Amino acid sequence: MSTHWLSKINWSEDGLVPVITQEAGSGKILMFAWMNREAIKLTVEMGQAIYWSRTRKKLWHKGEESGHVQKIKEIYLDCDEDVLLLTVEQVGGIACHTGRYSCFFNKLENDQWMIIAPVLKDPKSIYNK
Amino acid sequence: MSTHWLSKINWSEDGLVPVITQEAGSGKILMFAWMNREAIKLTVEMGQAIYWSRTRKKLWHKGEESGHVQKIKEIYLDCDEDVLLLTVEQVGGIACHTGRYSCFFNKLENDQWMIIAPVLKDPKSIYNK
Repeated sequence: MSTHWLSKINWSEDGLVPVITQEAGSGKILMFAWMNREAIKLTVEMGQAIYWSRTRKKLWHKGEESGHVQKIKEIYLDCDEDVLLLTVEQVGGIACHTGRYSCFFNKLENDQWMIIAPVLKDPKSIYNK
Repeated sequence: MSTHWLSKINWSEDGLVPVITQEAGSGKILMFAWMNREAIKLTVEMGQAIYWSRTRKKLWHKGEESGHVQKIKEIYLDCDEDVLLLTVEQVGGIACHTGRYSCFFNKLENDQWMIIAPVLKDPKSIYNK
């Protein structure tokens, strides 16, 4: 695989870029995360989303434990070449570690954050198999 | 206006949060930027997107020069309470400083970034009024 395309990405000082993950078809935003050079390279090679976990400081194959992997459909880079957008097929229909469809479930309504999406699966049953 | 909702946001060490801006209705991702506390407060008060420009180190009322303001429809916060998602009406149908509909116009195809969206308006005519 040619990796010339990797050189076009403007990595931040800490070697990361922000990543927006959108569901192909519905256009819904599923989550937001980070990637380093190795993560996006593996993502392209495997066809599944592999992020960089800033808290755990290691590569994070999304769904490796839960089975909720994200199959890559398209990859975009923005005008400043420092933000990635993935469109994916979300296996299991759950992207969030809380057991929800999307991570963006707090909606601002009348100066309050309202939870507007249900937990589809108990996180305990997702992660303690 | 109650500002209790502002306290729920987990600001980074530099006082910012990433912001994803999505077109209401179409679901298309228009851009990615940053906000500080003042920016999101003003955004809610004015009903238009006001970001924090990290390069210019000042508040940035999107469209103040071009007229391409973003009218806020909905505001979401993610599960970790450290990423915002705006759904907006993009006035003028141009979000990108290159004169394109969206900032995400580089698509990875066969290990190459391909420009997949046309320039709708010459940036010179957008900014040198």
